[in-house]
Amino acid sequence: MAINYPAGTRRRTAQAKNTMRMGKTTKKALTFGKRGMGLEDEINLANDYYLANHLAVIHKKPTPITIVKVDYPARSAAKITEAYFKQASTTDYNGVYQGRYIDFDAKETKNKTSFPLKNFHEHQIVHLANVLSQNGVGFVIIKFASLDESYIYPAQALIRQWEKLRGKQSIAYQDIIAEGYRVPESLNPSLDYLKAVDQYFENLN
Amino acid sequence: MAINYPAGTRRRTAQAKNTMRMGKTTKKALTFGKRGMGLEDEINLANDYYLANHLAVIHKKPTPITIVKVDYPARSAAKITEAYFKQASTTDYNGVYQGRYIDFDAKETKNKTSFPLKNFHEHQIVHLANVLSQNGVGFVIIKFASLDESYIYPAQALIRQWEKLRGKQSIAYQDIIAEGYRVPESLNPSLDYLKAVDQYFENLN
Repeated sequence: MAINYPAGTRRRTAQAKNTMRMGKTTKKALTFGKRGMGLEDEINLANDYYLANHLAVIHKKPTPITIVKVDYPARSAAKITEAYFKQASTTDYNGVYQGRYIDFDAKETKNKTSFPLKNFHEHQIVHLANVLSQNGVGFVIIKFASLDESYIYPAQALIRQWEKLRGKQSIAYQDIIAEGYRVPESLNPSLDYLKAVDQYFENLN
Repeated sequence: MAINYPAGTRRRTAQAKNTMRMGKTTKKALTFGKRGMGLEDEINLANDYYLANHLAVIHKKPTPITIVKVDYPARSAAKITEAYFKQASTTDYNGVYQGRYIDFDAKETKNKTSFPLKNFHEHQIVHLANVLSQNGVGFVIIKFASLDESYIYPAQALIRQWEKLRGKQSIAYQDIIAEGYRVPESLNPSLDYLKAVDQYFENLN
C-alpha cells in the first residue's frame, strides 16, 4: 500500500523524498536551464511536482485516438495496427486545486507582439465557456517563447477576444499582459504556473 | 459562433432543442429500455445530456496509448500503425458540477451479493485519495447488472474498505447500500447519476 494521505507520517515521508528529488532537479536545472524544453514538458513536470507535494492533482489528458484494428498475438500484449488521431473535444489539462476545478490548454508562440487566435479551435473555446458556466476555473497558458514569458490568460478574456475578433487575427501582447498573470521565474518546477493561478484567485475573491 | 452561454436566448435555444431530442430518446428508451446497454454507454449518454442542458461538464478521458509508429501517407491523414494500450494512471471520468471537481470510475459486476475489489487497480485508489486531499469529490459508480441497481459509492468508503481488505476479497452488497447512494430510475438519461450525487452532497453539507 502506498496511498499518500494528506496528513500524518506518510505525508512527511513523501515530502522528505521529494526534497531529495528537488535537490537533483535543481542541480540539473542550474546546469541545463530550460533550454529546448517545450511548454508541454514544463507543464508535465510542474504537474508531477504538484502531485508529489500534495499541492494539486492536475493531469494531461491522453491524446484521443480512433482505433480501427487491433491484433491479439498469442502470449503478447494487444497491438494496435491501425488507428487515427481524433480532434479533441475539450482542453488538454484538468484537475483540482484547493477544491476548485481547473481546466486549461497550453499554447506557445514565437511571435513577440501578439498571439494568433488560429492556435485555438472553436470547440476549445466552447468547452471553456461551458466550464465557466459550472463555476469552474478556465484559462490558457500562453508562452511567448522568444521572450521567455508565460502567462495565465483567463478564459473570460479569451472568449471576449474570440468574439470580438471572430476567431481570426491575433490578441495583442499588451492585452495579454493587461489581463493575464505572469508565471514568475522558478527553478523547480521551471514553470510554477500555480503561482500565477494564485494571483488570479486573489483577483477573483 | 455557437458558444452556449449559461444564460440568455442561446440557452433557451439549446434547451428547446434538447427537449425535442429528449422526446426521441424517451421514445427509444420506452421501446428498447436499457437492454444490452453497458454502464459506460449509459454514463456517456448521461454526460451528453448534462452538457446539453448546462447541468455539468463531465467527460470520459481518452484511452491512454503508447504510440510507436506513425505513417504519413501523402494527401491522407496520419495513420498510427503500431501502438499499445497503456495502464491509466487516473480514473476514467472527471469534470465540474456546480463548481465542484468530480472524479470517478465506473465498474459493473454480475455478482448479486458483493463487489470484488479486484475490479480496481491500486493507482486508481491512490488517485482518488489524492483527489480527496484537494477537496475534490471522488466516488465510483458500481452497477450490479443482475439486480439492475447502480450506486454512487464515495471514495472515502472505498479507500477504507480497500485498506481493511488489502485490495483482495469483496465489498459486501450490504456495505455498499449502507454507505452508497442509489441512482434512481430514470428514462432520460437512463442513468441519471447526478441525482445520487446530489443526495451525497446533501449528506456532506
